[in-house]
Amino acid sequence: MIVVMDDKATEQKVQIVISKLRELGYEVHRSDGVNQTVLGAVGEKRDIDLRDIELLDGVREVIPITKPYKLAGREFHPDDTVIKIKNVEIGGHRIVLMAGPCSVEDLESTRKIAQSVAKDGATVLRGGAFKPRTSPYAFQGLGEDGLKFLRAAADETGMLAISEVMDVSQLELVSRYVDILQVGARNMQNFFLLKELGKTRIPIMLKRGMAATIEDWLMAAEYILAGGNYQVMLCERGIRTFENYTRNTLDLSAIPVVKKLSHLPVLVDPSHGTGRRDKVIPMARAAVAVGADGLMIEVHSAPDSALSDGAQSLYLQQFTQLVGELKMIAHAVNKII
Amino acid sequence: MIVVMDDKATEQKVQIVISKLRELGYEVHRSDGVNQTVLGAVGEKRDIDLRDIELLDGVREVIPITKPYKLAGREFHPDDTVIKIKNVEIGGHRIVLMAGPCSVEDLESTRKIAQSVAKDGATVLRGGAFKPRTSPYAFQGLGEDGLKFLRAAADETGMLAISEVMDVSQLELVSRYVDILQVGARNMQNFFLLKELGKTRIPIMLKRGMAATIEDWLMAAEYILAGGNYQVMLCERGIRTFENYTRNTLDLSAIPVVKKLSHLPVLVDPSHGTGRRDKVIPMARAAVAVGADGLMIEVHSAPDSALSDGAQSLYLQQFTQLVGELKMIAHAVNKII
Amino acid sequence: MIVVMDDKATEQKVQIVISKLRELGYEVHRSDGVNQTVLGAVGEKRDIDLRDIELLDGVREVIPITKPYKLAGREFHPDDTVIKIKNVEIGGHRIVLMAGPCSVEDLESTRKIAQSVAKDGATVLRGGAFKPRTSPYAFQGLGEDGLKFLRAAADETGMLAISEVMDVSQLELVSRYVDILQVGARNMQNFFLLKELGKTRIPIMLKRGMAATIEDWLMAAEYILAGGNYQVMLCERGIRTFENYTRNTLDLSAIPVVKKLSHLPVLVDPSHGTGRRDKVIPMARAAVAVGADGLMIEVHSAPDSALSDGAQSLYLQQFTQLVGELKMIAHAVNKII
Amino acid sequence: MIVVMDDKATEQKVQIVISKLRELGYEVHRSDGVNQTVLGAVGEKRDIDLRDIELLDGVREVIPITKPYKLAGREFHPDDTVIKIKNVEIGGHRIVLMAGPCSVEDLESTRKIAQSVAKDGATVLRGGAFKPRTSPYAFQGLGEDGLKFLRAAADETGMLAISEVMDVSQLELVSRYVDILQVGARNMQNFFLLKELGKTRIPIMLKRGMAATIEDWLMAAEYILAGGNYQVMLCERGIRTFENYTRNTLDLSAIPVVKKLSHLPVLVDPSHGTGRRDKVIPMARAAVAVGADGLMIEVHSAPDSALSDGAQSLYLQQFTQLVGELKMIAHAVNKII
Repeated sequence: MIVVMDDKATEQKVQIVISKLRELGYEVHRSDGVNQTVLGAVGEKRDIDLRDIELLDGVREVIPITKPYKLAGREFHPDDTVIKIKNVEIGGHRIVLMAGPCSVEDLESTRKIAQSVAKDGATVLRGGAFKPRTSPYAFQGLGEDGLKFLRAAADETGMLAISEVMDVSQLELVSRYVDILQVGARNMQNFFLLKELGKTRIPIMLKRGMAATIEDWLMAAEYILAGGNYQVMLCERGIRTFENYTRNTLDLSAIPVVKKLSHLPVLVDPSHGTGRRDKVIPMARAAVAVGADGLMIEVHSAPDSALSDGAQSLYLQQFTQLVGELKMIAHAVNKII
Repeated sequence: MIVVMDDKATEQKVQIVISKLRELGYEVHRSDGVNQTVLGAVGEKRDIDLRDIELLDGVREVIPITKPYKLAGREFHPDDTVIKIKNVEIGGHRIVLMAGPCSVEDLESTRKIAQSVAKDGATVLRGGAFKPRTSPYAFQGLGEDGLKFLRAAADETGMLAISEVMDVSQLELVSRYVDILQVGARNMQNFFLLKELGKTRIPIMLKRGMAATIEDWLMAAEYILAGGNYQVMLCERGIRTFENYTRNTLDLSAIPVVKKLSHLPVLVDPSHGTGRRDKVIPMARAAVAVGADGLMIEVHSAPDSALSDGAQSLYLQQFTQLVGELKMIAHAVNKII
Repeated sequence: MIVVMDDKATEQKVQIVISKLRELGYEVHRSDGVNQTVLGAVGEKRDIDLRDIELLDGVREVIPITKPYKLAGREFHPDDTVIKIKNVEIGGHRIVLMAGPCSVEDLESTRKIAQSVAKDGATVLRGGAFKPRTSPYAFQGLGEDGLKFLRAAADETGMLAISEVMDVSQLELVSRYVDILQVGARNMQNFFLLKELGKTRIPIMLKRGMAATIEDWLMAAEYILAGGNYQVMLCERGIRTFENYTRNTLDLSAIPVVKKLSHLPVLVDPSHGTGRRDKVIPMARAAVAVGADGLMIEVHSAPDSALSDGAQSLYLQQFTQLVGELKMIAHAVNKII
Repeated sequence: MIVVMDDKATEQKVQIVISKLRELGYEVHRSDGVNQTVLGAVGEKRDIDLRDIELLDGVREVIPITKPYKLAGREFHPDDTVIKIKNVEIGGHRIVLMAGPCSVEDLESTRKIAQSVAKDGATVLRGGAFKPRTSPYAFQGLGEDGLKFLRAAADETGMLAISEVMDVSQLELVSRYVDILQVGARNMQNFFLLKELGKTRIPIMLKRGMAATIEDWLMAAEYILAGGNYQVMLCERGIRTFENYTRNTLDLSAIPVVKKLSHLPVLVDPSHGTGRRDKVIPMARAAVAVGADGLMIEVHSAPDSALSDGAQSLYLQQFTQLVGELKMIAHAVNKII
């Protein structure tokens, strides 16, 4: 960390700060300018609360220089992480398409959707069985039945299956049916859940919280990685801003930022990011253009009667057409779909 | 809901919308203006996704008129809810002071802090045993030992005890030791946890999430209330904004807004809301001035060596002085401390 | 507007509201539900402060149904507006590229940049002469000399010229040299300036303010249109959010939203939107993919020694390569560059 | 500034950065840790774009240590600035009350309001003559007539007068009538206007922009101070956040932050900050409790028929009652009203 002293901090105050830093295990380098003393504290500790130094007498500002995450950072792992699950690679040359209904509703519609999106090139089937809904009065998902239908439809079409786990108590159950566990935006800082996921060896897709900075997001990934589970992929799905024509503001600039800071694959979910079908399509195109490793898109065979989020689900034929456009854009950024 | 049709929507399109609304169980009132048809759909349903109507052909906009919450609303319960726990009333004429360390660290310091804040007039002892930390490398709390120390210090001073429950699996354990269960900001939309809390009859303090609108917050309370647990109090602790001189932006205007929309008690946590001791004091004063039912403040006997959040913890004597100021302000708003 | 009455509002209160609405010139339609009365007030007035109704006794909520803008709305002008300036069309089938230095620094570099970007297909040369800088100690632009150099370089390469006007007092001067006047983000609600621009017949590019909702932005355009100047194009350049890895959050979802609400052309400025050269390139690609009518990009022959915003300016050869990629993406969305 | 090099930056890259910094006039101090080299660059320059260093090869991060403002900072002027205008002191022991109508509407109502608020203890009469309105169709103010009425009512009651100047072209006119010139939130970064105000010797009240960080705000003040006009007071009036139950989010924590960073007086405008009369009162109380040097409040003799912002204007008797409460709170924070 860098400690900037007040313009007129006395030598005694400077010495107290230096002692405190050394006590904490830092090596201290001092720079005296005309008006100002600046201390560089070099060390590997990641659990210091910088505000404790900031409140010492004579200190103007404390600036972190060590990133709070380690395993998630590109300095720790310079090459891109590519997660291989069966015949699918996530984070490599091929952009991964995850598609399916918001909630699994029954076997028949799930199969119909799976067959259609698989034909278009999707390799991961999404579908919620346990649904986090803002209203206690809304449809909460089919539970284990939903997982069974999802698995059956995925197997039939040779796709992987992904579904959300909302709580540690569901972990064992959901893991039996899916290839990738999804952590929802509202659970991104459910540290208890993250720790348990770190103990598994199941690939995890970690959605960005609505109020999460990119650093918060990487720290959440660090929780899983620190447990020894290195198969973590990230998914941008919109942040909360003052603009509310769209449900959230899909932060596409986060994609190149994360690709620079971290080695983990990053996907984009334009369905939750925009909340409206007619905005999903252009934002999906933009996500590929900006360099995302994959997309997660809600698709339904009958969006108008979907039990949840129908308004943001694409019709089957819309997805087909979209994939055609995405292929051309992928080509422009040296990738394939 | 109100459905506003496009300026030139044909009669056929209007009829299709009317049919759809009736099918969903709404009574429909139609207003034809010179340019525009507006449909008023009256009904009690709370689980309709308005976007499904919005995407019908010829519809310009759909506007909700029923609040999505019911039990949390003042229309359902016009009088203020006052929660009585032993000899303490929360939501009444007396402003409640909750104080204590961020994390419980050992029995001795907890007792020392409890004795000091109890003497000042605090009636609820706070202290974390399971800590949600952004870094996996930071101190995570003492667990059950922390709860034991908290309970002992509370009993000795005649105070109530409050502590955070992070996960359903901790619920039984934490409940054995505390009088009020706290739901942290990052768990405000952990619906699985909220549902379980709804099944208990233990008073709950629900902190506002960093990205939660006031409506989101009341909907989270609704989850608990819908389970039959009516002892819910709210706690504002700062929202995420572009300003980052302070950790979060403490939204004090939320207090009069919530007091109007809901009957539930509302407290303010200026410690997490600002993140710096020197900002805690003025914001605590402001919280009383704005009409909060109580305060939750981090106080420590030795903030400089606290294991977590020392920088935002008040010294014992600072709390004593603050309470003196708060009493004068409480008087100005017709309350007592 | 729609007026929702309180659940138990008396008939007398309802009548007072109806009278008030009629007095204001509205036609009132009444819907009585089981619990609730809803009033639909139909009229053309756009200057009513809805809060005046909202504060009447017994009123729960007032909801606007007339958009506050008229001339900027697609209902007023269903077809896309295409602005023709000399041989350039903005808002049509061809995506417009505006490129050039942040500030005009001297004739030679401006010519060099112009020649390079013109060869790549840019048709509008940008360059600041009067610069809005957050610091009073930073370079403030060359003034009229800058405009002369910009004009000369534009003429030599057959390009249009665009530059910012910061104040009404500069209007006459800047207008003599440029084909399009730019209104900066910080001036988006400088209504005095907007009114004066409405009196001219010079094409205007109106950047979105950092705190402006899409509605605010269209209302600012309405100021210019209401003066009779219909040649207005919009430019998204990032909004302020809690995320600060990037300077601003470029809100690309605003593009499809504006294209639906309004007939005006919409461009994207990824240079100011991200603030860093390595983020400009992917976001420029994404802007084309999402459907923007054009791009404004800062390009410099020697970014490392640029007098302002060098860090976000592309090298000449980076722009050349970017345009190659953009052409492929434009093709995917049925446009050309 | 502090330059943090990449973990494995070569010695050559370090040397290039050092040379560049020296070239720019900085004195450079180098710290080599086990993994990382950190450079401290000490100097007085305030016009360097740090991103230019950040983009050099091998640089991981650049951190500013010199605040970008100087004259506005408390280090430059350790004592509180107290602005004396006639018999009124702003920034001293007595909290200043500015009150009056949103817009001046006619002489009679202005006099009536002035007499009432003067009797309550207000010493500055506010009233808009040139109004920045989001809609071009809304009432835009009375212009010079408004200023005449304001001046007359102020003189009659021995109050100072304050009114907004929207554009440089109005400066001479408005200055003839008022004692304090107000810069509105939407003009906070109208640098052209700020520069002209710096040339005057008229006291300025600078409102915070809706998207302005505290640093942006102090930089805007710096523009005026740098011109030699030291009579600058600041006014918090709400920032834009995702929460929209209130018009803006009044950021009261900004008050103690600004009081620490700067010597300038800071007022609060709860009328624009909340937009609703019933929220103005509690937030005014909170503003005094948090330590504001003054309040600006909209008061009207007939809010229901006010030409602008009636919904957020207090009735005369509400203001009288509010002042009574404020006096008690002022006492609690060692101030008087």
